[in-house]
Amino acid sequence: MQKGIIHFGVGDSMDTYMYIKSSTKAVASNGKPFLTLILSDKTGEIEAKLWDVSEDDERNFSGEKTVKVLGDVQNFRGRSQLKIRNIRLTTEQDGVTPADLIQTAPLSQDEMMGKITQYIFEMKNPNIQRITRHLLKKYQSDFLTFPAATKNHHEFYSGLAYHVVSMLDLAKGITALYPTLDKDLLYAGIILHDLGKVKELSGPVSTVYTTEGNLLGHITIMVNEIGKAADELNIHTEEIMILQHLVLSHHGKAEWGSAKPPLVREAEVLHYIDNLDAKINMMNRALEKAKPGEFTEKVFALENRSFYKPTFSE
Amino acid sequence: MQKGIIHFGVGDSMDTYMYIKSSTKAVASNGKPFLTLILSDKTGEIEAKLWDVSEDDERNFSGEKTVKVLGDVQNFRGRSQLKIRNIRLTTEQDGVTPADLIQTAPLSQDEMMGKITQYIFEMKNPNIQRITRHLLKKYQSDFLTFPAATKNHHEFYSGLAYHVVSMLDLAKGITALYPTLDKDLLYAGIILHDLGKVKELSGPVSTVYTTEGNLLGHITIMVNEIGKAADELNIHTEEIMILQHLVLSHHGKAEWGSAKPPLVREAEVLHYIDNLDAKINMMNRALEKAKPGEFTEKVFALENRSFYKPTFSE
Amino acid sequence: MQKGIIHFGVGDSMDTYMYIKSSTKAVASNGKPFLTLILSDKTGEIEAKLWDVSEDDERNFSGEKTVKVLGDVQNFRGRSQLKIRNIRLTTEQDGVTPADLIQTAPLSQDEMMGKITQYIFEMKNPNIQRITRHLLKKYQSDFLTFPAATKNHHEFYSGLAYHVVSMLDLAKGITALYPTLDKDLLYAGIILHDLGKVKELSGPVSTVYTTEGNLLGHITIMVNEIGKAADELNIHTEEIMILQHLVLSHHGKAEWGSAKPPLVREAEVLHYIDNLDAKINMMNRALEKAKPGEFTEKVFALENRSFYKPTFSE
Amino acid sequence: MQKGIIHFGVGDSMDTYMYIKSSTKAVASNGKPFLTLILSDKTGEIEAKLWDVSEDDERNFSGEKTVKVLGDVQNFRGRSQLKIRNIRLTTEQDGVTPADLIQTAPLSQDEMMGKITQYIFEMKNPNIQRITRHLLKKYQSDFLTFPAATKNHHEFYSGLAYHVVSMLDLAKGITALYPTLDKDLLYAGIILHDLGKVKELSGPVSTVYTTEGNLLGHITIMVNEIGKAADELNIHTEEIMILQHLVLSHHGKAEWGSAKPPLVREAEVLHYIDNLDAKINMMNRALEKAKPGEFTEKVFALENRSFYKPTFSE
Amino acid sequence: MQKGIIHFGVGDSMDTYMYIKSSTKAVASNGKPFLTLILSDKTGEIEAKLWDVSEDDERNFSGEKTVKVLGDVQNFRGRSQLKIRNIRLTTEQDGVTPADLIQTAPLSQDEMMGKITQYIFEMKNPNIQRITRHLLKKYQSDFLTFPAATKNHHEFYSGLAYHVVSMLDLAKGITALYPTLDKDLLYAGIILHDLGKVKELSGPVSTVYTTEGNLLGHITIMVNEIGKAADELNIHTEEIMILQHLVLSHHGKAEWGSAKPPLVREAEVLHYIDNLDAKINMMNRALEKAKPGEFTEKVFALENRSFYKPTFSE
Amino acid sequence: MQKGIIHFGVGDSMDTYMYIKSSTKAVASNGKPFLTLILSDKTGEIEAKLWDVSEDDERNFSGEKTVKVLGDVQNFRGRSQLKIRNIRLTTEQDGVTPADLIQTAPLSQDEMMGKITQYIFEMKNPNIQRITRHLLKKYQSDFLTFPAATKNHHEFYSGLAYHVVSMLDLAKGITALYPTLDKDLLYAGIILHDLGKVKELSGPVSTVYTTEGNLLGHITIMVNEIGKAADELNIHTEEIMILQHLVLSHHGKAEWGSAKPPLVREAEVLHYIDNLDAKINMMNRALEKAKPGEFTEKVFALENRSFYKPTFSE
Repeated sequence: MQKGIIHFGVGDSMDTYMYIKSSTKAVASNGKPFLTLILSDKTGEIEAKLWDVSEDDERNFSGEKTVKVLGDVQNFRGRSQLKIRNIRLTTEQDGVTPADLIQTAPLSQDEMMGKITQYIFEMKNPNIQRITRHLLKKYQSDFLTFPAATKNHHEFYSGLAYHVVSMLDLAKGITALYPTLDKDLLYAGIILHDLGKVKELSGPVSTVYTTEGNLLGHITIMVNEIGKAADELNIHTEEIMILQHLVLSHHGKAEWGSAKPPLVREAEVLHYIDNLDAKINMMNRALEKAKPGEFTEKVFALENRSFYKPTFSE
Repeated sequence: MQKGIIHFGVGDSMDTYMYIKSSTKAVASNGKPFLTLILSDKTGEIEAKLWDVSEDDERNFSGEKTVKVLGDVQNFRGRSQLKIRNIRLTTEQDGVTPADLIQTAPLSQDEMMGKITQYIFEMKNPNIQRITRHLLKKYQSDFLTFPAATKNHHEFYSGLAYHVVSMLDLAKGITALYPTLDKDLLYAGIILHDLGKVKELSGPVSTVYTTEGNLLGHITIMVNEIGKAADELNIHTEEIMILQHLVLSHHGKAEWGSAKPPLVREAEVLHYIDNLDAKINMMNRALEKAKPGEFTEKVFALENRSFYKPTFSE
Repeated sequence: MQKGIIHFGVGDSMDTYMYIKSSTKAVASNGKPFLTLILSDKTGEIEAKLWDVSEDDERNFSGEKTVKVLGDVQNFRGRSQLKIRNIRLTTEQDGVTPADLIQTAPLSQDEMMGKITQYIFEMKNPNIQRITRHLLKKYQSDFLTFPAATKNHHEFYSGLAYHVVSMLDLAKGITALYPTLDKDLLYAGIILHDLGKVKELSGPVSTVYTTEGNLLGHITIMVNEIGKAADELNIHTEEIMILQHLVLSHHGKAEWGSAKPPLVREAEVLHYIDNLDAKINMMNRALEKAKPGEFTEKVFALENRSFYKPTFSE
Repeated sequence: MQKGIIHFGVGDSMDTYMYIKSSTKAVASNGKPFLTLILSDKTGEIEAKLWDVSEDDERNFSGEKTVKVLGDVQNFRGRSQLKIRNIRLTTEQDGVTPADLIQTAPLSQDEMMGKITQYIFEMKNPNIQRITRHLLKKYQSDFLTFPAATKNHHEFYSGLAYHVVSMLDLAKGITALYPTLDKDLLYAGIILHDLGKVKELSGPVSTVYTTEGNLLGHITIMVNEIGKAADELNIHTEEIMILQHLVLSHHGKAEWGSAKPPLVREAEVLHYIDNLDAKINMMNRALEKAKPGEFTEKVFALENRSFYKPTFSE
Repeated sequence: MQKGIIHFGVGDSMDTYMYIKSSTKAVASNGKPFLTLILSDKTGEIEAKLWDVSEDDERNFSGEKTVKVLGDVQNFRGRSQLKIRNIRLTTEQDGVTPADLIQTAPLSQDEMMGKITQYIFEMKNPNIQRITRHLLKKYQSDFLTFPAATKNHHEFYSGLAYHVVSMLDLAKGITALYPTLDKDLLYAGIILHDLGKVKELSGPVSTVYTTEGNLLGHITIMVNEIGKAADELNIHTEEIMILQHLVLSHHGKAEWGSAKPPLVREAEVLHYIDNLDAKINMMNRALEKAKPGEFTEKVFALENRSFYKPTFSE
Repeated sequence: MQKGIIHFGVGDSMDTYMYIKSSTKAVASNGKPFLTLILSDKTGEIEAKLWDVSEDDERNFSGEKTVKVLGDVQNFRGRSQLKIRNIRLTTEQDGVTPADLIQTAPLSQDEMMGKITQYIFEMKNPNIQRITRHLLKKYQSDFLTFPAATKNHHEFYSGLAYHVVSMLDLAKGITALYPTLDKDLLYAGIILHDLGKVKELSGPVSTVYTTEGNLLGHITIMVNEIGKAADELNIHTEEIMILQHLVLSHHGKAEWGSAKPPLVREAEVLHYIDNLDAKINMMNRALEKAKPGEFTEKVFALENRSFYKPTFSE
């Protein structure tokens, strides 16, 4: 098996199969067109520049293609960048499919669905359980393949479901320590909080925002969906409003997109668990690429901090 | 007819019929209970303190009662306050009803409904027209009696409808000057933008926030309602999403409660018209009480400013 | 007549007469000098790069020249940019003058002056009327040709006067709806509020800030001018101070350059009308270039938002 | 056993033993002196006013006394307040000691010390282990009795140790889910992060800030102590600096008192665990006093929010 | 000579001549009127409450009167407050005049005028010198008696001139160390920067804001005055604009009232000297009242900080 | 002697000895490597780009080398940049050493040490004197050679000591004017406030942050050092804590890195003197390069302002 992108550093040469996640054409300062490619495999991704492209190049190396690339990793403003010496589309002979290269969650869709089903099964409040099950079922196939975001964290195939599963596991541990927390409410809030992303985002790969995503956002979309589900299931109890509030407030503050701050205990805890999982995820990925005694690249979504990996780290 | 509250100043004595908008019990620093009453008539309202109250007083002078009050207007930290010398409930002999004393919009419900109906009638886009008509009809009776807020601006009987009518008239003038604006969209946005207040607030008088109002807010409530109305009318075109966006963004910024800022031209204009009408309304009421050459009381919702009334004002 | 700049999109070729609004020399990353040109005609403007320029090029293609340009419109970081294939100065044979290409207000100077004169004529307060007439007369010729700004909004020939005329028309509609507003004061405030720009800015085209503009700013300049005008006309009544306050406060907040916030009702309304006209102007221009179903380019002065043009727009 | 303070609501009468946590003399608006007492028992605390006090009263009812109080619970600006009808010092006959009334952690000092000792025992990094053990031993007796703060959260006898134990348990669960985290570092950071409070605060009860607490603060105090401990133990490896960084950064941001933000993964997680435990603690205590369907009192340290207790809460 | 106010602490009794700086009537929570008096002598001032006042009391103890007061100093929310036992107007027999009691600058008007005249005399730039001399002469008598503010710092008789003299002395020392600074400009800026306060404020005692002060502010007023002075002296060189800029920018930032930040070196230094003198002045007065080892009262204008007086202070 | 860098302007050619302060490799948009060099001599520094570098170039023109450079000064985004035509390492024949080119303080190390020794000698408080002498002696050699920062102000050889000497001279003048200030404390605070930079920064030239500098910062480092010094000298009086507070608070605000704001008078004055010296230093250097009637380059650390040099400046 080939060495993964994450294991190449500045100065290394790569001769590797990669998947073009996105391809953007622009004009260089010498007036010639070039492509900025985001190349990925299961271990990570790297930006690459392809200079002086022909019209054929543009067609061939647009997004969502599998390619063989020869190039050198260089430093560009503190980030790794691949300088391409040679690039070609793969053929059948290469025996490589997108599925071999696309970064996905470390758990299979079945494993994740199994865990979530179990969490729903354990709920004791029938209203909360029915709403959660209904909405998950409605959007299940997209939920299992979409990323959790276009960048920053869990931005890979099945990232949305994997983020939810990690949060559920965290919630299980926390509710064990603080028994006054309402488990059903917290689990349901976790499962639903980002489900609106199946409409906010365009799809599992090469993901961008939809118009609805831009104008309404995943929070508003999901709050509406809960309301409609309640009508369809003919549930008109307070659980509906509380679940809508959990989704509405999960970004924590008005300036972060939650028109109401958390005003229910489980809403506050949901907001915390969401943040904690995302942050550990981002730090882990940055630190994987750093050696002991070094600082990581700057992580934009963590206030642009660089993290230090102690020399005594294993 | 009796002289209105607004015409009494510090040093004046009042002997007047008034309506108790709210009554709050508290304990004075000498340990004795007292009531803080908000007393109103059609021209305005004044705070009053009733000291050393008995249990009978508490019962009698709770909210939403009509009373005859004798007292003196005093200055308390820069605001007028009535020191009550005598207060009694009115009887049939007084010939006074709440309707004689409650502050209401300067237009009748019929006049306002007539104007709004005409604006809807002029719409050319059938989807926008049907949604607007459907939702207005659904909540029409509350819409015509509710205030637009619990304080700050248009916080009187029918204040919500009156605010909407003023905004529609403003919009008519503005769309005449900037003909690229989509009239239908702007009118519909104005009619719907605050309609969620019929669920956010408790009622036309002694108005407080409902639990749903606290946890979801009138914006989220109305965005949901538009979605449900679209299902009921079987309209699934882009107009729905755009109307939801207008309601969602009408507070202008995330930190003011709009998860998305205005991203459609008419949404930005709606936000402006809403602010302009509210601000002129607040300034007018503050200036009514000031004489030329004086500053008004501080207006909390206008960044706590005091406004100056020029000596050459009429 | 030739097709205007605004009607060309990415991918189009242009072969067009244009006016060089500005020309800036810089050094490319290959070490060679190049020019960044802002090219305009009556419909709009476009940035262009001229690579590897000779000393002759620098001389020829400096600002305020009329040129014939052949090139291709490309996308550069989300904005249109012209890649020049050929550029030459126009000669008499071309029959093109700067006046044919410079963007100007849609009304003639006479029309605008006629409208403003009428607004001043309608004033009933003689002090306000005399001050306004005196200052307008003093700076009339510059007022009628200057732009309202160097960028963002009304940044074209006669843009300052056109902005004032639009605001006066808006004010007329608003004062009709809110009759307590002092028309004379509001009209005078509108006419004077930006008049200091004739000293803050360098001239009607290729406009930059003067030293006085940088160190004092148009607000301070105009407040001083009102004081001097009052001395010259021997008017020493409160109207002077109030007009100075309207000018001083028209940016609304200290952090936006108004040392005092609006503390007179008409000052607050002036601030609102100023903003509303500027914003609609900016949105209209951005939306003109977008097709239904698309987002506009980002508009820097509107918090960098992109606006959506609904599919049902005409 | 007597009914605890937490179980009394507005309108109830109390006839109860309580402990005076603090007593402040002031002058009422009628010119007479009065005392503001904070009265507590194991279940909570309540503010009380004692009007028109004599010099004897002042002496008797100063802080840290045990008293028998008869009074009525009233509402004062949205908070409960006790109106005292009768108060007297306890005598031997009452058979009540401060220990019966002072609020303490739900675990005994031995239990807490046992748990912490076990966490230290599990550490594999000898440098981290020795530093932690050394400092804990140095301040052990104060650590086990001090509160974690003067107000807001864990402000009771042994609150500091209890907060640390809760955080360690949380950390155990989280490190199980995210195995790349360095357990030793995180545990040590938790044990040391607030240990400087034994010098910042004055003692286990009637706690106020010391001068050193005001001028240096517990973070700076503890960072210094780690440096000195390293000298005494002759450890000069990177672990020292990293532990100092964890303590230094645990408030998360400069404006919250951490001169450096967390730049080591475990520092970020420590900051999160600290917040999460404090917040759940504060919400739990506020919600204990509210009934289902009600909002709690405003919680100052949680951005002054009121939390809603759903009607379906047990 | 009597012991000054500043030397009395909580618990002391006073039997002293004082000057009533201001007197405000309000209503106590028992419904009875009382007066809040600010009483002063040369050493400082103290707030006092006079309860249950008659109409005679109101008349007698309004502002700007000389009184003999017997009372006790008490603590009210961390500040000293005098509880009046007896108060009477002084008569001729007392042999006390306001001049004996009003706090004034430590230098006489002649001494201050002498120093400032010397600084002007040393100027080498004739334009700067003439403008400064002209404006100082125009407002000299008010300049020598007005306070520098209504509260916070230098809020005493002749405080404005004294603040200017202190700043000039500071400037002399600083220009000696940094010889590139333009002395003339800096001295002139210091003399003129706050001179507009003679129109912003109402007078030397019981000082409040004038309408012009509220609507324009001392900065705008003085910038205008410099412009008019230039016209009168027929000076039309750059010095005028630079002096206007120094005055305009001396608050340092837009949000502190300077529409332009300092953009000339001497403007930045002026801003610094202004702040430094004001801050030392405020700290000195707060520390005078504290004993070694204590914290001062909170100083509102210094971000509400309390300052510590070290035990080793003399 | 050769003409210094500061005397070259845009359009000039340079043929000069220079010192490479730093050298950074990057990849141009045409895919070829280039170096960004910071070249300096005693008068200043200039950025230069070396295009299409070979591996030899990279080795030769890395940091801390002496070179002979031929090139042209060009304008790059408002800043001067040198376009290199020829560059070579110096040889013995050139007779140039780094000491001839490195920018240093205008005073010699001996002069500076002499002045500081005198200030310490004048101290009357033996505890303050001993601590200051001890710490200065401990780090004396680095203190005399390190810069005060990596950029912005005093970023040259011996800049740290020079900044301290300037501040001491300023303090001497200020304490003469405000005699209540504690000279000993202020002088000691000035000498110690930035001494931690000898551990925060890597060395006297090509200065970068150390890991300890990044994770703890010079403030925390120095506060620790004072604590350790006190132990070594066996001084346990309040002076230690106050000196630690002066160092801790000298950035003035939490968001600028001081966990505690100045709470001692001399701490506030220290913060002011630090700022004033740094700001005058930065303005002087920017203005040196500008001609009368021009604005300087933007100064990043002064809120990105450009300063104006009046036409009447000498």
